[in-house]
Amino acid sequence: MKIGFIGLGNMGKPMAENLASGSHSVSGYDISGEIPDAVVKCDSIAKCVNNADIVITMLPSGEILKKVAADAIKGMKDKSILLDCSTVDVESSREVAIISKNMGIGALDAPVSGGVGGAEAGTLTFMVGGEQSDFNKAKELFDIMGQKSVLCGPSGSGQSAKICNNMILGATMIATCEAFALADKLNLSREKMYDVVSTSSGYSWSMNAYCPAPGVGPKSPSDNNYIPGFSAQLMLKDLKLSQQAAKLADADTPIGAKATELYRQFVEDENSGNQDFSAMLKRFEKRKHSH
Amino acid sequence: MKIGFIGLGNMGKPMAENLASGSHSVSGYDISGEIPDAVVKCDSIAKCVNNADIVITMLPSGEILKKVAADAIKGMKDKSILLDCSTVDVESSREVAIISKNMGIGALDAPVSGGVGGAEAGTLTFMVGGEQSDFNKAKELFDIMGQKSVLCGPSGSGQSAKICNNMILGATMIATCEAFALADKLNLSREKMYDVVSTSSGYSWSMNAYCPAPGVGPKSPSDNNYIPGFSAQLMLKDLKLSQQAAKLADADTPIGAKATELYRQFVEDENSGNQDFSAMLKRFEKRKHSH
Repeated sequence: MKIGFIGLGNMGKPMAENLASGSHSVSGYDISGEIPDAVVKCDSIAKCVNNADIVITMLPSGEILKKVAADAIKGMKDKSILLDCSTVDVESSREVAIISKNMGIGALDAPVSGGVGGAEAGTLTFMVGGEQSDFNKAKELFDIMGQKSVLCGPSGSGQSAKICNNMILGATMIATCEAFALADKLNLSREKMYDVVSTSSGYSWSMNAYCPAPGVGPKSPSDNNYIPGFSAQLMLKDLKLSQQAAKLADADTPIGAKATELYRQFVEDENSGNQDFSAMLKRFEKRKHSH
Repeated sequence: MKIGFIGLGNMGKPMAENLASGSHSVSGYDISGEIPDAVVKCDSIAKCVNNADIVITMLPSGEILKKVAADAIKGMKDKSILLDCSTVDVESSREVAIISKNMGIGALDAPVSGGVGGAEAGTLTFMVGGEQSDFNKAKELFDIMGQKSVLCGPSGSGQSAKICNNMILGATMIATCEAFALADKLNLSREKMYDVVSTSSGYSWSMNAYCPAPGVGPKSPSDNNYIPGFSAQLMLKDLKLSQQAAKLADADTPIGAKATELYRQFVEDENSGNQDFSAMLKRFEKRKHSH
């Protein structure tokens, strides 16, 4: 397949490199002009998408996606597919899909989980929205860039699944951090806390796979001075997207809203956005400072 | 062993029956006067604890525990053990342990998880605080009444572990319910939501083992019209205990506090205390009604 790849940042670069190391021809465009060696460098979006079977975008926001997609769609050939792997708001994602389809182009939203490590190792998970036939065509690319891809429903469903998952994740991580800090103050050891909770009804990915307490549970960013991993600012971005979607859909998400507020404080007021999102534990190790 | 059992309600009754069906002699006292056939009926605490090796209490609150323990300790023999299986506040639990030890009596706090079903089946989990030697003596009783017992640390540690676990549980259940309701409004199917989240970083006991969405995931109270299981009012009780402990220990638990507020509304304002705690999903299926 001939692939155009737009947006070769921390995530897009290793994804494009993995595709290029297969049997696919990959052309790349990035606003920075920096393109990895394995990818054919293009100096415009028009050249990047020209004659491509699938155009992949990996961009930081819905606004940027809409601008880039408008340019890309103009140059894409009939029945090609626009595969957006960005994490953006559900509305922007749906808009791009509608415009694509009106132009005879397939559209998939396929945000990922797994971070830069997963992008480099080719072990990402793709949560996908769009039509089954387009998903089937893109499947072999998902299999190169990742280890799992799930078609969740029509356009926007990939974004919806990701923000629902990450809203739960953000809230559960904070609750887990609060509980560790409470346990400290009650003289319950962190090791015992982990032993009990990880095998009881409080278990979760945050506790069992990504324990925020250093030295407890399997190896995680807490054991590496909270170097991400998944940064607090990216968690905040996803939580904000969940709250934007909830507002538009008239959904009540009080715990999600509280988690968003707490990560906003952590990122903006405490300037901790570059730390792993599990570093939230450090906030609670202090005395209480907000209620 | 000769066992005295005080408090033979929904939980205590099956626990005492399981002990009596073994090779132990069980004397029982309950304020209601109702004692199961397998247990020797006593008409006072003094008679119930007379010459017992271990006295087990299963009571609804710290206040009641303190009164009952004061009576019981007076009549207990030297080097016997007071084994409290109630879920109460950490402070009351520690007070009872101190008084017991001053009288030459061992003390264990051993709140359970597993509910009435676990009590009847003998599959409870005991989270235990106290001394190793006392734990060792009580171990054979834990093994009859349950399938797991963990010594978490000194007196009060069992209560601490339980409230930390259940604070995480309450918050995670609400976040999971919010996410299902948001998914509904974004037209993401519940089945797909379960498929993605239960195998991604949003997984938890609330999602994977006790899914609040009827017909999704393994069988749970949501599939039985939200008949408990674990009632919302018991979840509220445990969340209040977590907040009481947090206040005394000067711990900051904003997500735990929000979860407590939401279960308080659900139990008190919406009169839903007798429903399973996963019925919180029904609150979010409605339009939003508080922020």
